Amino acid sequence: MYLTDKKVAVMGAAGAIGSNMVQDLLATGTANNICMYDPFAVGLEGAAEEIYHCGFPGARVTYTTDVAEALTGASYILSSGGAPRKDGMTREDLLKGNCEIAKQLGLDIKQYAPDAEFVVIIFNPADITGLTTLIYSGLKPGYVSTLAALDSTRLQTRLATFFGVAQDEVTGCTTYGGHGESMAVFKGNTAVQGVKLDDILAGAAVNGKTLNAEDWATIQEAVRTGGAKIIKLRGRSSYQSPSHQTVEMLRGRITGEYAWPCGLYFGDGGKYANVMMAADTKFGPDGLTGSIPAGSPEDQEALAKSYAHVAKLRDEVIDAKVLPPISEWKTYNPNL
Amino acid sequence: MYLTDKKVAVMGAAGAIGSNMVQDLLATGTANNICMYDPFAVGLEGAAEEIYHCGFPGARVTYTTDVAEALTGASYILSSGGAPRKDGMTREDLLKGNCEIAKQLGLDIKQYAPDAEFVVIIFNPADITGLTTLIYSGLKPGYVSTLAALDSTRLQTRLATFFGVAQDEVTGCTTYGGHGESMAVFKGNTAVQGVKLDDILAGAAVNGKTLNAEDWATIQEAVRTGGAKIIKLRGRSSYQSPSHQTVEMLRGRITGEYAWPCGLYFGDGGKYANVMMAADTKFGPDGLTGSIPAGSPEDQEALAKSYAHVAKLRDEVIDAKVLPPISEWKTYNPNL
Repeated sequence: MYLTDKKVAVMGAAGAIGSNMVQDLLATGTANNICMYDPFAVGLEGAAEEIYHCGFPGARVTYTTDVAEALTGASYILSSGGAPRKDGMTREDLLKGNCEIAKQLGLDIKQYAPDAEFVVIIFNPADITGLTTLIYSGLKPGYVSTLAALDSTRLQTRLATFFGVAQDEVTGCTTYGGHGESMAVFKGNTAVQGVKLDDILAGAAVNGKTLNAEDWATIQEAVRTGGAKIIKLRGRSSYQSPSHQTVEMLRGRITGEYAWPCGLYFGDGGKYANVMMAADTKFGPDGLTGSIPAGSPEDQEALAKSYAHVAKLRDEVIDAKVLPPISEWKTYNPNL
Repeated sequence: MYLTDKKVAVMGAAGAIGSNMVQDLLATGTANNICMYDPFAVGLEGAAEEIYHCGFPGARVTYTTDVAEALTGASYILSSGGAPRKDGMTREDLLKGNCEIAKQLGLDIKQYAPDAEFVVIIFNPADITGLTTLIYSGLKPGYVSTLAALDSTRLQTRLATFFGVAQDEVTGCTTYGGHGESMAVFKGNTAVQGVKLDDILAGAAVNGKTLNAEDWATIQEAVRTGGAKIIKLRGRSSYQSPSHQTVEMLRGRITGEYAWPCGLYFGDGGKYANVMMAADTKFGPDGLTGSIPAGSPEDQEALAKSYAHVAKLRDEVIDAKVLPPISEWKTYNPNL
């Protein structure tokens, strides 16, 4: 009835993303054995009660404020448990604070859930918090990832809206590199009703409409600011889409099928090294594998720029002594 | 891939229940052809964007602030679109205000969606708003219902917690009559791990625990105040469980299978007449049918009391001239 009966720990389960994720795990028939963790006991109980009142058959849902209880025996760990940015905090404060949370999560995973098969980090800046979790967890690189799909689904949405076609008639949308405003929105293999975006930009019409370079730049910008737009419209940051796509990533880990880019660790030696960022990924028996995405020179330039941004954030966290120097990463995690 | 491709109109789709419901309709594979309606344009756009960013394959989701567009061609209409109680409003203000919304919804259904096959009303007081919608819609009584499951799933939750058993090891939980603090929590066929509640109250142990009359009274009270407890814990009224159970009701309408009591119209002539309230219901080709639930004298007494409360609320709405006098109902809806 459910895709897996292995234990799923949902961290930050009192929050909007976490509580929605528990519902989505059950509603999609993905997992029934769920432990909801949050340090905020009152809200956690309320979120758990809501899930109970849904009455999902076969559900085995517990909740706890004890991280050891949450993680022990967990095969899958999905964490939206970062702190939101508060008044008076700088971006750097948020970066450092959330990376400290990610560090502790990594250490907790090492202690309580060393056999975890997949961890997805959702709290921002996800590229850096995901990387931090990976390093301290000691897990294999293919077992720790970050949610990176939303930029791509936002691109799909914008193109579908522009051309007035169904959303899934827009295919091959990919955004790579860092999640956030520095992301690289690839033309890649994007097609609308089967017509490649390159051809569209060269003048091909779809559904009676054409798209010029200026339109494309507008769409790319709308994708980059898609998250901020949700805050403006709803008065809160997105929670339904991060929740659902994280559940889809878990399904991908189990079934091997997942449609969107994921955050992938890049180790020493390549053009892009010692970061986690959205890449051309696929799920296999050993978790997530992938490579630098292919793209036009323009796409590659955007990716290089996005990588530089992610590397800079990483270096700030190393300078803040939350992450160790790169040379010591393998001491913390021999799997790297 | 989806249980139905008929049009589902979700009314109040910018709200917490409505936006969650759209996600749940898609996540459970229930419906893909959804129109999101809300008069609050900005929040509606934000909610729709979130759904788009989920990237559900096959989804055909639109949104509108035009009720005619939302309802035209809709086979199913799910409405959480009432007004919440605001500071300074009395319970009567809320009752009258939401019944006026329900009246307009009924009239809009009559005008734009006379072929609707199922309408579920979720906004409070649901027994009365559901009744009001039915009368003005002109639809068959079996085609309009109210969400009534949560009281029962709350009973299931409380008993599972008390005995320390899995939630679905508690079976046959039913609460009937009015939704809210006057509900009748039936012992009915409730059993825990197969042991009937009557036997438990006579001393039978389950999972090493016994439950006495005082414990049972405490549990009944906790069920009656289960909704208020959510508000206390989460700082907002429940939205995940009403959303999910409404989707389950729609599945019930389509497949014939649904596990919980639903709001049912009782016409002239019976012991319980001219109300909508939770009853012993089942789905058939002609929608919802049902009867007065069987129960112990004590259960029946509680139901009679709950009915009297619902009838009183109905009479207040008639007095406020939002509902016509009972004698005129058949003029408004010949199907009654």
